Amino acid sequence: MFAESTVDVVDAMRMAASFRLPVIPFGAGTSLEGHTDALHGGLSIDLSRMSRILAVNERDLDATVEAGVTREQLNIHLRDTGMFFPVDPGANATIGGMSATRASGTNAVRYGTMRENVLNLTVVTAQGKTLRTARRARKSSAGYDLTRLIVGSEGTLGIITEVTVRLYGIPEQVAAGVASFPSIGQAVNAVVATIQYGLPVARIELLDPFSISAFNAHSGSHLPVAPTLFVELHGTPSGVSDQTAELIDIFTAHEGGEISFATSEQERNRLWRARHHMHYALLAQRPGAKAWGTDVCVPIGSLAECIARIMPDVEAAPFPVSLLGHVGDGNFHLGLLIDPESADEMAVAKGINEKVVNIALALDGTSTGEHGVGFGKAGYMNDEHGEGLEMMWAIKRALDPLGILNPGKIFPAGRFALYSPANADHESGG
Amino acid sequence: MFAESTVDVVDAMRMAASFRLPVIPFGAGTSLEGHTDALHGGLSIDLSRMSRILAVNERDLDATVEAGVTREQLNIHLRDTGMFFPVDPGANATIGGMSATRASGTNAVRYGTMRENVLNLTVVTAQGKTLRTARRARKSSAGYDLTRLIVGSEGTLGIITEVTVRLYGIPEQVAAGVASFPSIGQAVNAVVATIQYGLPVARIELLDPFSISAFNAHSGSHLPVAPTLFVELHGTPSGVSDQTAELIDIFTAHEGGEISFATSEQERNRLWRARHHMHYALLAQRPGAKAWGTDVCVPIGSLAECIARIMPDVEAAPFPVSLLGHVGDGNFHLGLLIDPESADEMAVAKGINEKVVNIALALDGTSTGEHGVGFGKAGYMNDEHGEGLEMMWAIKRALDPLGILNPGKIFPAGRFALYSPANADHESGG
Repeated sequence: MFAESTVDVVDAMRMAASFRLPVIPFGAGTSLEGHTDALHGGLSIDLSRMSRILAVNERDLDATVEAGVTREQLNIHLRDTGMFFPVDPGANATIGGMSATRASGTNAVRYGTMRENVLNLTVVTAQGKTLRTARRARKSSAGYDLTRLIVGSEGTLGIITEVTVRLYGIPEQVAAGVASFPSIGQAVNAVVATIQYGLPVARIELLDPFSISAFNAHSGSHLPVAPTLFVELHGTPSGVSDQTAELIDIFTAHEGGEISFATSEQERNRLWRARHHMHYALLAQRPGAKAWGTDVCVPIGSLAECIARIMPDVEAAPFPVSLLGHVGDGNFHLGLLIDPESADEMAVAKGINEKVVNIALALDGTSTGEHGVGFGKAGYMNDEHGEGLEMMWAIKRALDPLGILNPGKIFPAGRFALYSPANADHESGG
Repeated sequence: MFAESTVDVVDAMRMAASFRLPVIPFGAGTSLEGHTDALHGGLSIDLSRMSRILAVNERDLDATVEAGVTREQLNIHLRDTGMFFPVDPGANATIGGMSATRASGTNAVRYGTMRENVLNLTVVTAQGKTLRTARRARKSSAGYDLTRLIVGSEGTLGIITEVTVRLYGIPEQVAAGVASFPSIGQAVNAVVATIQYGLPVARIELLDPFSISAFNAHSGSHLPVAPTLFVELHGTPSGVSDQTAELIDIFTAHEGGEISFATSEQERNRLWRARHHMHYALLAQRPGAKAWGTDVCVPIGSLAECIARIMPDVEAAPFPVSLLGHVGDGNFHLGLLIDPESADEMAVAKGINEKVVNIALALDGTSTGEHGVGFGKAGYMNDEHGEGLEMMWAIKRALDPLGILNPGKIFPAGRFALYSPANADHESGG
């Protein structure tokens, strides 16, 4: 069904509860881990028509939008206000969907993820009640942080219908540049040094030579085919010029080439737009292929080791693999370009994904930095959380006693067998 | 009892569960809302002996400490590393206690509160199980955000025994200054303009004339007795000099006096140390008095209105009242210096507190910006959260079915009557 208001969602939720029908929220459909699949059948609630921008509070630097508003729509709306919303996963996802998966993107190293940028949410519960998770104040110590409990809960604890997000003033000065490095290791070490130095980079992105080839072919650029960092600095004019000088020092110390700066806003936008279209640029490198993206994130000091440990498998793969990512956060993606018809390639891809997850977990990292769990990563949750998964499950059972909110997501499949009708009866009467 | 390890807490928790004994965690005892009172009797677990710094990861800019480590202890330990931990409530609280109440302080406008600065926690559950709420990666989309659920839960969902916090590089350049304004309204408007402009102030604190008198008397300073802003800027040398120029422009536009800058690190430390001792400076203004601190926080654009609406009551009060606060976050405190023997003064103080909370709630703000709920603010939680409180309660019941974790805190008193032994039996078997 298409929801056009919170009340529509309430009505659908009550109906679904009375029939014990699973409910699966849907936004722009850009999820990479199967979040919107109806694994147990049920009702898909499409929120894309809830696309009104309800309020822009310039004085408070925030905006309240319906869940179906996309990030690009919001930024176009803000164009004349001098403010912007920074969180930018590659796709033009909805703000509701981005909240549900705790999305981030290239700007997170400076501005944070959806975790830091959602002020409050309007949520419809499994019982068809409506609540707001918090007030609009920037900070509060008033009880449990429901906002951050719902952010990243992937529709399994309630359905997000409205979101209040933080906005930021567009920086006075912006400088974007590109620099090549002799090896991936040196590029990564330059990023680690930049973060450890405390340089407040707004974006710092790694692309391996294969990604640069794809980038050049797709965007008509002529960047040297080498391990490359894309970087952006925000601040006052002399703040940015200080940062630039420091960045050049750090890059030089790691044998980076000269930083080539985009001189105009147009050129800068073209650079980042092309970076956001990397998914398509990569697919074009192997027509007919499917891209499988890994998504681990580790403490920044372990990033070089994490990449070094998976590289032998990447190099031995029988299909092209790109390496790129939000390295300033310790997050990177391998893009495995596999033939979807080939069981062999699928098996190798699965092996690489599993191996990089296990390496990341061993380094105190996470199986998913920004894509979410869906059902694609559900099998890793026991290893990642241990006893913590029991706490998550207790919360899930308490808030969704009938098990109708996006079942089969986040938790390993076996858990949902516990939602037998007998159990559900017992729980809902508790 | 004194806990000396997580295992001690596990043992105590299991024993308490078997006797259905309430458990109340205790750190430095600096709470302002009665968090550590044993309202229903039970066992106080004192974590102050868990004061080991377990790891400082310079490469990852984080540290893991036992819950009883205080913020000053951590910063002294970090002294030679070039890093610091920024969250600074006035008191020398424990990191565990600061996590439990979602504390903040003067630096939150730039560095965030405990919400943003805790990476993960080790928690002992009501069932005596131990879990870690997250990995050490800077971001993750792997399931529910247990870290932020436990931060601010005030010992009602589990007992925090270890905390991993973010660290920051000590800024290259720091400038701290003081400026007077003709009225509180103009000082507040200068702060609002500073924030809306996007100037990344590290601290920006308001003190009213009464607070300045107390400050002068207690610290031997000679600041003009007027509404005053204390401000601090962090950055590169020329970044700070840009920020200083912009700050002077903004202050001048709001009729602020010249900014008097602390020239040495020693002078700067003296300024902030004195600011942190304001509680005692104020008490010295009325010997024998007790200070009752309000703690509302509103969206920044409504801060001037919130203060203006409570000022008539402040001016009519039969006891001295200070106004000071972390105005860059929209958070301020009234310090009501009451005679604890006087029922009349208590009644007026109660009325002022209630009124300022209601004003803040009407402005989409919160009853508590940083002190927490304890039992002092529990009566406002229905008004503040509405249906959200039902969700919090469902989580509380699911994670603490026996109702033994710090009972009587966060939720209005009536709720706990639901924890009858019969109910508890039913729940624990669910």
